[in-house]
Amino acid sequence: MRTVDVCLSPDMMHLYDISERTVVIVDILRATSCMVTAFAHGVDHIVPHANLESCRAMKAEGYITSGERNGEKVDGFDKGNSPFEYMQGVKGNKIAFTTTNGTQAIDKSLRAREIIIGSFLNLSSVAQHLLHGSNSVLILCAGWKGKINLEDSIFAGALVNKIRSQILPECDAPLAAAHLYETAKGDMTGFMASASHVQRLRRLDVTKDIAFCLSEDKYDVVPFLDGRNQLTIDKTRVPRGNWQ
Amino acid sequence: MRTVDVCLSPDMMHLYDISERTVVIVDILRATSCMVTAFAHGVDHIVPHANLESCRAMKAEGYITSGERNGEKVDGFDKGNSPFEYMQGVKGNKIAFTTTNGTQAIDKSLRAREIIIGSFLNLSSVAQHLLHGSNSVLILCAGWKGKINLEDSIFAGALVNKIRSQILPECDAPLAAAHLYETAKGDMTGFMASASHVQRLRRLDVTKDIAFCLSEDKYDVVPFLDGRNQLTIDKTRVPRGNWQ
Repeated sequence: MRTVDVCLSPDMMHLYDISERTVVIVDILRATSCMVTAFAHGVDHIVPHANLESCRAMKAEGYITSGERNGEKVDGFDKGNSPFEYMQGVKGNKIAFTTTNGTQAIDKSLRAREIIIGSFLNLSSVAQHLLHGSNSVLILCAGWKGKINLEDSIFAGALVNKIRSQILPECDAPLAAAHLYETAKGDMTGFMASASHVQRLRRLDVTKDIAFCLSEDKYDVVPFLDGRNQLTIDKTRVPRGNWQ
Repeated sequence: MRTVDVCLSPDMMHLYDISERTVVIVDILRATSCMVTAFAHGVDHIVPHANLESCRAMKAEGYITSGERNGEKVDGFDKGNSPFEYMQGVKGNKIAFTTTNGTQAIDKSLRAREIIIGSFLNLSSVAQHLLHGSNSVLILCAGWKGKINLEDSIFAGALVNKIRSQILPECDAPLAAAHLYETAKGDMTGFMASASHVQRLRRLDVTKDIAFCLSEDKYDVVPFLDGRNQLTIDKTRVPRGNWQ
Protein backbone atom coordinates (compact mmCIF):
# COMPACT_ATOMS: atom_id res chain seq x y z
CA MET A 1 0.00 0.00 0.00
CA ARG A 2 1.34 3.43 -0.91
CA THR A 3 1.61 6.03 1.84
CA VAL A 4 1.82 9.80 2.16
CA ASP A 5 3.77 11.55 4.90
CA VAL A 6 4.24 15.27 5.52
CA CYS A 7 7.55 16.90 6.49
CA LEU A 8 6.55 20.21 8.06
CA SER A 9 10.05 21.72 7.84
CA PRO A 10 13.20 21.07 5.77
CA ASP A 11 15.01 20.80 9.13
CA MET A 12 13.25 17.46 9.69
CA MET A 13 14.19 15.94 6.32
CA HIS A 14 16.80 13.64 7.92
CA LEU A 15 13.86 11.64 9.36
CA TYR A 16 12.53 10.57 5.97
CA ASP A 17 13.80 7.98 3.51
CA ILE A 18 12.79 9.54 0.20
CA SER A 19 14.70 7.29 -2.19
CA GLU A 20 11.49 5.60 -3.38
CA ARG A 21 9.17 8.56 -2.97
CA THR A 22 7.80 11.43 -4.99
CA VAL A 23 8.56 14.60 -3.04
CA VAL A 24 6.11 17.49 -3.48
CA ILE A 25 7.87 20.81 -2.77
CA VAL A 26 5.56 23.40 -1.18
CA ASP A 27 6.30 27.09 -0.60
CA ILE A 28 2.89 28.71 -0.97
CA LEU A 29 4.00 32.27 -0.12
CA ARG A 30 5.34 32.51 -2.69
CA ALA A 31 8.05 30.49 -4.48
CA THR A 32 6.13 27.45 -5.70
CA SER A 33 3.09 29.62 -6.53
CA CYS A 34 5.36 31.76 -8.74
CA MET A 35 6.93 28.72 -10.40
CA VAL A 36 3.55 27.19 -11.25
CA THR A 37 2.33 30.54 -12.59
CA ALA A 38 5.44 30.84 -14.78
CA PHE A 39 4.91 27.38 -16.31
CA ALA A 40 1.24 28.14 -16.90
CA HIS A 41 2.44 31.16 -18.89
CA GLY A 42 4.94 29.30 -21.05
CA VAL A 43 8.36 29.50 -19.38
CA ASP A 44 10.72 26.93 -20.93
CA HIS A 45 12.46 25.87 -17.73
CA ILE A 46 13.46 27.14 -14.27
CA VAL A 47 16.78 26.46 -12.54
CA PRO A 48 16.39 26.60 -8.74
CA HIS A 49 19.34 28.09 -6.85
CA ALA A 50 19.74 27.85 -3.10
CA ASN A 51 22.64 30.31 -3.40
CA LEU A 52 21.88 33.93 -4.29
CA GLU A 53 25.14 34.74 -6.08
CA SER A 54 25.11 31.62 -8.27
CA CYS A 55 21.58 32.64 -9.25
CA ARG A 56 22.72 36.16 -10.11
CA ALA A 57 25.51 34.77 -12.31
CA MET A 58 22.95 33.02 -14.56
CA LYS A 59 22.04 36.40 -16.08
CA ALA A 60 25.16 36.13 -18.28
CA GLU A 61 23.79 32.87 -19.70
CA GLY A 62 20.55 34.48 -20.83
CA TYR A 63 18.44 33.66 -17.81
CA ILE A 64 15.82 35.90 -16.23
CA THR A 65 17.00 36.24 -12.60
CA SER A 66 14.22 35.87 -10.03
CA GLY A 67 13.62 35.53 -6.36
CA GLU A 68 13.66 37.08 -2.93
CA ARG A 69 15.37 37.18 0.40
CA ASN A 70 13.26 37.76 3.51
CA GLY A 71 10.22 38.41 1.33
CA GLU A 72 11.76 41.20 -0.71
CA LYS A 73 13.05 41.31 -4.31
CA VAL A 74 16.83 41.03 -4.62
CA ASP A 75 18.70 44.13 -5.84
CA GLY A 76 19.55 43.83 -9.53
CA PHE A 77 17.29 40.82 -10.16
CA ASP A 78 14.75 40.94 -13.02
CA LYS A 79 11.77 39.64 -11.07
CA GLY A 80 10.73 39.27 -7.43
CA ASN A 81 8.41 36.83 -5.71
CA SER A 82 4.93 37.96 -6.80
CA PRO A 83 3.05 35.47 -9.02
CA PHE A 84 1.69 38.39 -11.05
CA GLU A 85 5.23 39.07 -12.32
CA TYR A 86 5.23 35.64 -13.95
CA MET A 87 2.16 36.17 -16.16
CA GLN A 88 4.03 38.07 -18.87
CA GLY A 89 7.51 38.14 -20.38
CA VAL A 90 8.23 34.52 -19.54
CA LYS A 91 6.96 32.58 -22.61
CA GLY A 92 9.82 30.59 -24.16
CA ASN A 93 12.29 32.08 -21.71
CA LYS A 94 14.34 30.46 -18.95
CA ILE A 95 14.49 31.58 -15.32
CA ALA A 96 17.07 31.26 -12.53
CA PHE A 97 15.13 31.34 -9.25
CA THR A 98 16.23 31.66 -5.63
CA THR A 99 14.15 32.13 -2.47
CA THR A 100 14.65 32.08 1.28
CA ASN A 101 13.04 28.70 1.79
CA GLY A 102 11.67 27.12 -1.40
CA THR A 103 14.85 26.40 -3.31
CA GLN A 104 16.54 25.16 -0.14
CA ALA A 105 13.73 22.62 0.18
CA ILE A 106 14.49 21.38 -3.34
CA ASP A 107 18.18 21.06 -2.45
CA LYS A 108 17.28 18.80 0.48
CA SER A 109 15.17 16.54 -1.77
CA LEU A 110 17.70 15.61 -4.44
CA ARG A 111 17.83 11.94 -3.34
CA ALA A 112 14.13 11.50 -4.14
CA ARG A 113 12.85 9.34 -6.97
CA GLU A 114 10.82 12.25 -8.28
CA ILE A 115 10.51 15.92 -7.32
CA ILE A 116 7.46 17.97 -8.30
CA ILE A 117 6.20 21.47 -7.48
CA GLY A 118 2.94 21.95 -5.57
CA SER A 119 0.77 24.98 -4.80
CA PHE A 120 -2.93 25.68 -4.37
CA LEU A 121 -2.85 26.96 -7.96
CA ASN A 122 -2.20 23.43 -9.32
CA LEU A 123 -3.57 21.38 -6.39
CA SER A 124 -5.85 19.02 -8.31
CA SER A 125 -3.31 18.44 -11.08
CA VAL A 126 -0.67 17.48 -8.52
CA ALA A 127 -3.17 15.12 -6.85
CA GLN A 128 -4.00 13.49 -10.19
CA HIS A 129 -0.29 13.10 -10.97
CA LEU A 130 0.29 11.34 -7.64
CA LEU A 131 -2.79 9.12 -7.97
CA HIS A 132 -1.79 8.04 -11.49
CA GLY A 133 1.81 7.36 -10.39
CA SER A 134 3.13 4.40 -8.43
CA ASN A 135 5.31 6.05 -5.76
CA SER A 136 4.66 6.75 -2.11
CA VAL A 137 4.66 10.47 -1.38
CA LEU A 138 6.36 12.97 0.91
CA ILE A 139 4.94 16.49 0.98
CA LEU A 140 7.79 18.82 1.99
CA CYS A 141 6.73 22.16 3.43
CA ALA A 142 9.41 24.81 2.95
CA GLY A 143 8.36 26.63 6.11
CA TRP A 144 10.14 29.78 7.25
CA LYS A 145 13.82 29.46 8.17
CA GLY A 146 13.32 25.97 9.53
CA LYS A 147 10.11 26.65 11.45
CA ILE A 148 6.70 25.44 10.32
CA ASN A 149 4.17 27.80 8.77
CA LEU A 150 0.40 27.70 8.39
CA GLU A 151 0.11 28.19 4.63
CA ASP A 152 2.37 25.27 3.67
CA SER A 153 0.79 23.08 6.37
CA ILE A 154 -2.78 23.66 5.17
CA PHE A 155 -1.75 23.01 1.57
CA ALA A 156 -0.25 19.70 2.73
CA GLY A 157 -3.59 18.91 4.37
CA ALA A 158 -5.53 19.80 1.22
CA LEU A 159 -3.32 17.49 -0.85
CA VAL A 160 -3.52 14.65 1.71
CA ASN A 161 -7.33 14.89 1.55
CA LYS A 162 -7.27 14.70 -2.28
CA ILE A 163 -5.24 11.46 -2.35
CA ARG A 164 -5.95 9.63 0.92
CA SER A 165 -8.56 7.32 -0.58
CA GLN A 166 -5.69 5.57 -2.41
CA ILE A 167 -2.51 6.75 -0.68
CA LEU A 168 -2.72 6.26 3.08
CA PRO A 169 -1.59 8.88 5.61
CA GLU A 170 1.49 7.68 7.53
CA CYS A 171 2.18 8.96 11.08
CA ASP A 172 0.51 12.02 12.56
CA ALA A 173 1.76 14.96 10.47
CA PRO A 174 -0.62 14.23 7.53
CA LEU A 175 -3.52 13.95 10.01
CA ALA A 176 -2.60 17.23 11.71
CA ALA A 177 -2.27 18.98 8.34
CA ALA A 178 -5.62 17.61 7.16
CA HIS A 179 -7.33 18.84 10.34
CA LEU A 180 -5.81 22.30 9.82
CA TYR A 181 -7.05 22.41 6.22
CA GLU A 182 -10.55 21.40 7.30
CA THR A 183 -10.52 24.27 9.82
CA ALA A 184 -9.19 26.75 7.24
CA LYS A 185 -11.00 25.89 4.03
CA GLY A 186 -14.26 27.75 4.69
CA ASP A 187 -12.39 31.05 5.02
CA MET A 188 -8.80 30.71 3.90
CA THR A 189 -8.03 34.42 4.00
CA GLY A 190 -9.50 34.79 7.49
CA PHE A 191 -7.67 31.71 8.74
CA MET A 192 -4.41 33.02 7.35
CA ALA A 193 -4.82 36.56 8.69
CA SER A 194 -2.99 35.68 11.91
CA ALA A 195 -0.19 33.73 10.26
CA SER A 196 3.26 35.10 10.88
CA HIS A 197 4.31 35.11 7.22
CA VAL A 198 1.13 36.97 6.27
CA GLN A 199 2.01 39.51 8.95
CA ARG A 200 5.49 39.79 7.43
CA LEU A 201 4.12 40.16 3.90
CA ARG A 202 1.47 42.67 4.97
CA ARG A 203 4.33 44.97 5.79
CA LEU A 204 5.36 44.53 2.14
CA ASP A 205 1.80 45.24 0.96
CA VAL A 206 1.13 42.05 -0.97
CA THR A 207 -2.45 41.29 0.05
CA LYS A 208 -3.37 40.61 -3.59
CA ASP A 209 -0.55 38.06 -3.90
CA ILE A 210 -1.75 36.22 -0.79
CA ALA A 211 -5.35 35.92 -2.02
CA PHE A 212 -4.08 34.63 -5.38
CA CYS A 213 -1.67 32.11 -3.82
CA LEU A 214 -4.55 30.66 -1.76
CA SER A 215 -6.76 30.11 -4.86
CA GLU A 216 -7.23 26.48 -5.87
CA ASP A 217 -6.85 25.02 -9.34
CA LYS A 218 -6.10 28.04 -11.48
CA TYR A 219 -3.61 26.02 -13.55
CA ASP A 220 -3.08 22.42 -14.63
CA VAL A 221 0.72 22.28 -14.94
CA VAL A 222 2.84 19.89 -12.82
CA PRO A 223 6.47 21.07 -12.91
CA PHE A 224 9.09 18.40 -12.17
CA LEU A 225 12.88 18.38 -11.76
CA ASP A 226 14.63 16.77 -14.73
CA GLY A 227 18.02 15.04 -15.09
CA ARG A 228 19.87 18.35 -15.26
CA ASN A 229 18.19 19.62 -12.07
CA GLN A 230 16.03 21.97 -14.10
CA LEU A 231 12.32 22.39 -13.47
CA THR A 232 10.21 21.73 -16.56
CA ILE A 233 6.83 20.47 -17.70
CA ASP A 234 8.30 18.99 -20.90
CA LYS A 235 7.98 15.21 -20.53
CA THR A 236 10.43 14.56 -23.39
CA ARG A 237 13.27 15.91 -21.19
CA VAL A 238 15.91 13.49 -19.87
CA PRO A 239 14.62 12.27 -16.49
CA ARG A 240 16.68 12.33 -13.30
CA GLY A 241 19.19 9.49 -12.97
CA ASN A 242 17.39 7.72 -10.15
CA TRP A 243 14.01 7.73 -11.81
CA GLN A 244 12.57 4.47 -13.01
CA MET B 1 6.10 41.46 25.88
CA ARG B 2 6.54 37.79 26.75
CA THR B 3 5.99 35.24 24.00
CA VAL B 4 5.20 31.54 23.69
CA ASP B 5 6.51 29.37 20.87
CA VAL B 6 5.96 25.66 20.26
CA CYS B 7 8.68 23.24 19.15
CA LEU B 8 6.78 20.30 17.64
CA SER B 9 9.77 17.94 17.71
CA PRO B 10 13.07 17.73 19.62
CA ASP B 11 14.73 17.53 16.18
CA MET B 12 13.90 21.24 15.70
CA MET B 13 15.34 22.43 19.02
CA HIS B 14 18.39 23.98 17.28
CA LEU B 15 16.02 26.68 15.96
CA TYR B 16 15.16 28.05 19.40
CA ASP B 17 17.18 30.19 21.80
CA ILE B 18 15.94 28.91 25.15
CA SER B 19 18.50 30.60 27.43
CA GLU B 20 15.87 33.07 28.76
CA ARG B 21 12.83 30.80 28.47
CA THR B 22 10.87 28.37 30.56
CA VAL B 23 10.69 25.11 28.60
CA VAL B 24 7.60 22.96 29.17
CA ILE B 25 8.41 19.30 28.40
CA VAL B 26 5.43 17.42 26.94
CA ASP B 27 5.15 13.67 26.35
CA ILE B 28 1.46 12.99 26.88
CA LEU B 29 1.56 9.26 26.01
CA ARG B 30 2.93 8.66 28.54
CA ALA B 31 6.14 9.91 30.18
CA THR B 32 5.12 13.34 31.45
CA SER B 33 1.67 12.02 32.44
CA CYS B 34 3.41 9.36 34.55
CA MET B 35 5.79 11.88 36.13
CA VAL B 36 2.97 14.23 37.11
CA THR B 37 0.97 11.29 38.55
CA ALA B 38 4.00 10.18 40.60
CA PHE B 39 4.45 13.65 42.12
CA ALA B 40 0.74 13.87 42.88
CA HIS B 41 1.21 10.63 44.83
CA GLY B 42 4.20 11.77 46.84
CA VAL B 43 7.37 10.69 45.03
CA ASP B 44 10.39 12.55 46.47
CA HIS B 45 12.20 13.15 43.17
CA ILE B 46 12.68 11.67 39.69
CA VAL B 47 15.98 11.48 37.81
CA PRO B 48 15.39 11.45 34.04
CA HIS B 49 17.76 9.25 32.02
CA ALA B 50 18.05 9.39 28.24
CA ASN B 51 20.21 6.26 28.43
CA LEU B 52 18.60 2.96 29.39
CA GLU B 53 21.60 1.33 31.04
CA SER B 54 22.48 4.34 33.21
CA CYS B 55 18.85 4.28 34.34
CA ARG B 56 19.06 0.58 35.18
CA ALA B 57 22.22 1.17 37.25
CA MET B 58 20.33 3.52 39.59
CA LYS B 59 18.63 0.48 41.18
CA ALA B 60 21.81 -0.07 43.23
CA GLU B 61 21.40 3.41 44.68
CA GLY B 62 17.91 2.69 45.98
CA TYR B 63 15.94 4.06 43.05
CA ILE B 64 12.78 2.58 41.60
CA THR B 65 13.65 1.96 37.93
CA SER B 66 10.95 3.06 35.49
CA GLY B 67 10.29 3.59 31.84
CA GLU B 68 9.77 2.08 28.44
CA ARG B 69 11.25 1.55 25.02
CA ASN B 70 8.90 1.54 22.01
CA GLY B 71 5.89 1.71 24.34
CA GLU B 72 6.76 -1.41 26.34
CA LYS B 73 8.15 -1.86 29.86
CA VAL B 74 11.87 -2.58 30.00
CA ASP B 75 12.94 -6.07 31.16
CA GLY B 76 14.00 -6.01 34.81
CA PHE B 77 12.61 -2.52 35.51
CA ASP B 78 10.28 -1.99 38.48
CA LYS B 79 7.64 0.06 36.66
CA GLY B 80 6.58 0.70 33.08
CA ASN B 81 4.90 3.67 31.43
CA SER B 82 1.30 3.50 32.69
CA PRO B 83 0.23 6.37 34.97
CA PHE B 84 -1.75 3.89 37.08
CA GLU B 85 1.54 2.31 38.19
CA TYR B 86 2.52 5.61 39.80
CA MET B 87 -0.47 5.87 42.14
CA GLN B 88 0.95 3.55 44.78
CA GLY B 89 4.36 2.57 46.12
CA VAL B 90 5.97 5.89 45.23
CA LYS B 91 5.38 8.05 48.36
CA GLY B 92 8.71 9.24 49.76
CA ASN B 93 10.61 7.17 47.21
CA LYS B 94 12.88 8.22 44.34
CA ILE B 95 12.57 7.12 40.72
CA ALA B 96 15.01 6.77 37.83
CA PHE B 97 12.97 7.21 34.63
CA THR B 98 13.78 6.64 30.95
CA THR B 99 11.50 6.73 27.90
CA THR B 100 11.82 6.67 24.12
CA ASN B 101 11.13 10.37 23.66
CA GLY B 102 10.36 12.22 26.91
CA THR B 103 13.70 12.09 28.67
CA GLN B 104 15.51 12.87 25.41
CA ALA B 105 13.46 16.06 25.19
CA ILE B 106 14.66 17.04 28.69
CA ASP B 107 18.27 16.38 27.62
CA LYS B 108 17.85 18.83 24.71
CA SER B 109 16.51 21.53 27.04
CA LEU B 110 19.32 21.75 29.59
CA ARG B 111 20.33 25.26 28.46
CA ALA B 112 16.92 26.66 29.43
CA ARG B 113 16.40 29.08 32.30
CA GLU B 114 13.72 26.77 33.71
CA ILE B 115 12.42 23.31 32.79
CA ILE B 116 8.99 22.13 33.93
CA ILE B 117 6.84 19.08 33.20
CA GLY B 118 3.48 19.47 31.44
CA SER B 119 0.57 17.11 30.81
CA PHE B 120 -3.19 17.40 30.54
CA LEU B 121 -3.28 16.12 34.14
CA ASN B 122 -1.69 19.36 35.44
CA LEU B 123 -2.61 21.72 32.56
CA SER B 124 -4.11 24.58 34.58
CA SER B 125 -1.38 24.46 37.22
CA VAL B 126 1.29 24.71 34.52
CA ALA B 127 -0.58 27.64 32.94
CA GLN B 128 -0.80 29.42 36.32
CA HIS B 129 2.92 28.84 36.93
CA LEU B 130 3.77 30.40 33.56
CA LEU B 131 1.39 33.33 34.01
CA HIS B 132 2.81 34.09 37.48
CA GLY B 133 6.39 33.84 36.21
CA SER B 134 8.36 36.36 34.17
CA ASN B 135 9.90 34.23 31.42
CA SER B 136 8.93 33.72 27.81
CA VAL B 137 7.92 30.13 27.09
CA LEU B 138 8.82 27.28 24.76
CA ILE B 139 6.52 24.26 24.77
CA LEU B 140 8.62 21.28 23.64
CA CYS B 141 6.67 18.34 22.27
CA ALA B 142 8.59 15.08 22.65
CA GLY B 143 6.95 13.62 19.54
CA TRP B 144 7.80 10.14 18.34
CA LYS B 145 11.39 9.46 17.27
CA GLY B 146 11.75 12.98 15.90
CA LYS B 147 8.39 13.17 14.14
CA ILE B 148 5.47 15.23 15.42
CA ASN B 149 2.48 13.60 17.09
CA LEU B 150 -1.11 14.67 17.64
CA GLU B 151 -1.33 14.24 21.41
CA ASP B 152 1.63 16.47 22.26
CA SER B 153 0.57 19.02 19.61
CA ILE B 154 -2.98 19.37 20.98
CA PHE B 155 -1.64 19.70 24.52
CA ALA B 156 0.60 22.53 23.27
CA GLY B 157 -2.48 24.16 21.78
CA ALA B 158 -4.44 23.79 25.03
CA LEU B 159 -1.62 25.44 26.97
CA VAL B 160 -1.20 28.25 24.41
CA ASN B 161 -4.92 29.01 24.76
CA LYS B 162 -4.63 29.15 28.57
CA ILE B 163 -1.84 31.75 28.53
CA ARG B 164 -2.19 33.72 25.28
CA SER B 165 -4.04 36.62 26.89
CA GLN B 166 -0.73 37.57 28.57
CA ILE B 167 1.96 35.59 26.72
CA LEU B 168 1.71 36.13 22.95
CA PRO B 169 1.99 33.33 20.38
CA GLU B 170 5.18 33.71 18.33
CA CYS B 171 5.37 32.33 14.77
CA ASP B 172 2.87 29.80 13.38
CA ALA B 173 3.43 26.64 15.43
CA PRO B 174 1.44 27.93 18.46
CA LEU B 175 -1.41 28.98 16.13
CA ALA B 176 -1.44 25.58 14.40
CA ALA B 177 -1.41 23.78 17.77
CA ALA B 178 -4.24 25.98 19.09
CA HIS B 179 -6.37 25.25 16.00
CA LEU B 180 -5.76 21.51 16.47
CA TYR B 181 -6.82 21.70 20.12
CA GLU B 182 -9.99 23.59 19.19
CA THR B 183 -10.83 20.82 16.70
CA ALA B 184 -10.05 18.08 19.23
CA LYS B 185 -11.45 19.34 22.50
CA GLY B 186 -15.09 18.40 22.01
CA ASP B 187 -14.17 14.74 21.61
CA MET B 188 -10.56 14.12 22.56
CA THR B 189 -10.79 10.34 22.45
CA GLY B 190 -12.47 10.37 19.04
CA PHE B 191 -9.95 12.89 17.69
CA MET B 192 -7.08 10.78 18.94
CA ALA B 193 -8.46 7.48 17.64
CA SER B 194 -6.63 7.84 14.33
CA ALA B 195 -3.33 9.01 15.84
CA SER B 196 -0.39 6.78 15.09
CA HIS B 197 0.78 6.48 18.69
CA VAL B 198 -2.72 5.51 19.80
CA GLN B 199 -2.66 2.83 17.11
CA ARG B 200 0.70 1.65 18.47
CA LEU B 201 -0.55 1.64 22.07
CA ARG B 202 -3.80 -0.07 21.15
CA ARG B 203 -1.69 -3.06 20.23
CA LEU B 204 -0.40 -2.91 23.81
CA ASP B 205 -3.98 -2.69 25.16
CA VAL B 206 -3.71 0.57 27.08
CA THR B 207 -7.02 2.23 26.21
CA LYS B 208 -7.57 3.10 29.87
CA ASP B 209 -4.17 4.84 30.03
CA ILE B 210 -4.98 6.94 26.97
CA ALA B 211 -8.32 8.15 28.36
CA PHE B 212 -6.60 9.05 31.65
CA CYS B 213 -3.69 10.88 29.97
CA LEU B 214 -6.19 13.04 28.02
CA SER B 215 -8.02 14.11 31.23
CA GLU B 216 -7.49 17.73 32.23
CA ASP B 217 -6.58 19.03 35.69
CA LYS B 218 -6.56 15.90 37.80
CA TYR B 219 -3.53 17.20 39.74
CA ASP B 220 -2.05 20.54 40.78
CA VAL B 221 1.69 19.69 40.90
CA VAL B 222 4.25 21.45 38.68
CA PRO B 223 7.45 19.35 38.61
CA PHE B 224 10.63 21.26 37.73
CA LEU B 225 14.27 20.30 37.14
CA ASP B 226 16.52 21.38 40.01
CA GLY B 227 20.25 22.17 40.21
CA ARG B 228 21.18 18.48 40.33
CA ASN B 229 19.09 17.72 37.22
CA GLN B 230 16.49 16.02 39.37
CA LEU B 231 12.77 16.57 38.91
CA THR B 232 11.06 17.74 42.08
CA ILE B 233 8.17 19.83 43.38
CA ASP B 234 10.13 20.84 46.50
CA LYS B 235 10.80 24.58 46.13
CA THR B 236 13.46 24.53 48.87
CA ARG B 237 15.74 22.50 46.56
CA VAL B 238 18.86 24.13 45.08
CA PRO B 239 17.77 25.70 41.78
CA ARG B 240 19.57 25.15 38.49
CA GLY B 241 22.73 27.23 38.04
CA ASN B 242 21.33 29.42 35.29
CA TRP B 243 18.13 30.31 37.06
CA GLN B 244 17.63 33.83 38.28
